Amino acid sequence: MELEFLGTGAGMPSKERNTSSLAMKLYEERGTIWLFDCGEAAQHQILHTAIKPRKIEKVFITHLHGDHIFGLPGLLSSRSFLGGEEQTPLTLYGPSGLKEWVQFTLELTKTHLNYPIQYVDVKEGVIFEDDQFIVTAKELEHVIPCYGYRIEQKPLPGELYIEKAMKLGVPKGPLLGKLKNGEDVELDDGTIVYSKEVTGPPKKGFVITVLGDTRYCKQSIELSQNADIVIHEATFDHATSHLAKDYGHSTNVEAAKVAKEANAKHLILNHISARFLPHETGKLIKEAKTIFPNIFVANDFSAFQWKNGKLNELHP
Amino acid sequence: MELEFLGTGAGMPSKERNTSSLAMKLYEERGTIWLFDCGEAAQHQILHTAIKPRKIEKVFITHLHGDHIFGLPGLLSSRSFLGGEEQTPLTLYGPSGLKEWVQFTLELTKTHLNYPIQYVDVKEGVIFEDDQFIVTAKELEHVIPCYGYRIEQKPLPGELYIEKAMKLGVPKGPLLGKLKNGEDVELDDGTIVYSKEVTGPPKKGFVITVLGDTRYCKQSIELSQNADIVIHEATFDHATSHLAKDYGHSTNVEAAKVAKEANAKHLILNHISARFLPHETGKLIKEAKTIFPNIFVANDFSAFQWKNGKLNELHP
Repeated sequence: MELEFLGTGAGMPSKERNTSSLAMKLYEERGTIWLFDCGEAAQHQILHTAIKPRKIEKVFITHLHGDHIFGLPGLLSSRSFLGGEEQTPLTLYGPSGLKEWVQFTLELTKTHLNYPIQYVDVKEGVIFEDDQFIVTAKELEHVIPCYGYRIEQKPLPGELYIEKAMKLGVPKGPLLGKLKNGEDVELDDGTIVYSKEVTGPPKKGFVITVLGDTRYCKQSIELSQNADIVIHEATFDHATSHLAKDYGHSTNVEAAKVAKEANAKHLILNHISARFLPHETGKLIKEAKTIFPNIFVANDFSAFQWKNGKLNELHP
Repeated sequence: MELEFLGTGAGMPSKERNTSSLAMKLYEERGTIWLFDCGEAAQHQILHTAIKPRKIEKVFITHLHGDHIFGLPGLLSSRSFLGGEEQTPLTLYGPSGLKEWVQFTLELTKTHLNYPIQYVDVKEGVIFEDDQFIVTAKELEHVIPCYGYRIEQKPLPGELYIEKAMKLGVPKGPLLGKLKNGEDVELDDGTIVYSKEVTGPPKKGFVITVLGDTRYCKQSIELSQNADIVIHEATFDHATSHLAKDYGHSTNVEAAKVAKEANAKHLILNHISARFLPHETGKLIKEAKTIFPNIFVANDFSAFQWKNGKLNELHP
């Protein structure tokens, strides 16, 4: 799993930071990308990455402010243009009202998509579940309805003890794969080999919490409980915390408090106001580190990899 | 008057060309900017220019395809954010349906603008006139209703013959300005000095025709009659002219025919398909020059100045 930040600014684009968008690349897990928010020019940012719009399987919108959705109609159109033959459906999750706007916009502009969109009106609770993932939404505290999303990967098959399996007579080949994936197999001589016999305990999947715009609130902490990575807005710093409260936003220090109280492992700050110049991000980190140690500030095109239970920064 | 191209691509943004938008800077004439079309990320392009969004007085939309309007909600919002105290109204001209979409979008995203928008549903004919300018719209031939705009500057006061005025007893000072602007004045001794006596003939204003997406058509020629500058799309080249017709677009050669048949002075091609690589624009010009000599291909951030009846290329 890799995270690539396409927009990390607040409210308006600046030369340094575009409006909100984050790609979660699940290439290894399911060959697709999940997008969180889609501010204007998200598709322009994508032009400077290796992301193929047709790989985008799901888009999760946190709330209906323009800096989180104005790039959606353009991206949906381009995904159609650039899609080639094999078009996969797209699921769009967001607060009530999103579907009507997208449909109105596509109709007005006579945009005919060559793939279907499934719309999901987000409410609190589980909004998606399959054999790999479970996604839970919770309403945060912003000036309009805004949701945070907790993405939990289900436990993965444990390690396969190949030598032990071969001692039991399992030949090299597809039977080993079945055993690894939890299936019991029958050998040519009628022996049954049980998956449990030859595999270690299931491995824990990752938990990533992507929060939208919000004040410091207990829902953020609940949604971030024991998460491997929490992505939290930091529109303000400690000195401007009164503004954060007034405008329904958070400070770097409040984000750190959420990560600490949730017992999370890593915190990535985004939605950074243009008032903070590029050279000031170090200060934002330093201030928040007094509360929670494992902090990053995302820039546009910052990329992180989650592999074997560890977070690697691929691009600052 | 200066023209600055903010987006010169067709259909979708590419790394080289953004979707359509063109700024006509009327700083000398009226201290404002008129914008033609507003594709996604027009406001991002503006960040790389000296343009101040609050200076945008009018936005003319040619048609409701996404690559001409998806940047509008973001730009309208940012114009409000960045506006400062003194907010000037904005007039938005476009085909029927634009107003409803803009209003729906602003309402959905709870965007409260600190300036009023006046909406004008464009029909054929004169859509704006004041003492300086007259703007005429004509429907072109595209796959959806699409308008071209002819911007005519009204004649300017002729040259003031200062020596002649002073010989007639006009003192240095404001009376000279009045005479220049066509007013007759009374001197202290009761003498009337007529403006006509001391000024040359009125100077011709400029005529700029900004065409939207269109097939080669007679309306384009009518709207471009004797224009100083015609801005015409060239989505295709001569070899792909069958595609131009099918998709409601033009070739470079057809654009040149329009300029020639309209007896225009200069032609600037925009809306260039991403199929043409940056080094191929020379070929597009060469091919069209066989029909009409004074041709430019606009790139993003190309800038032209119209001064004293001459076109100067400020930025290629």
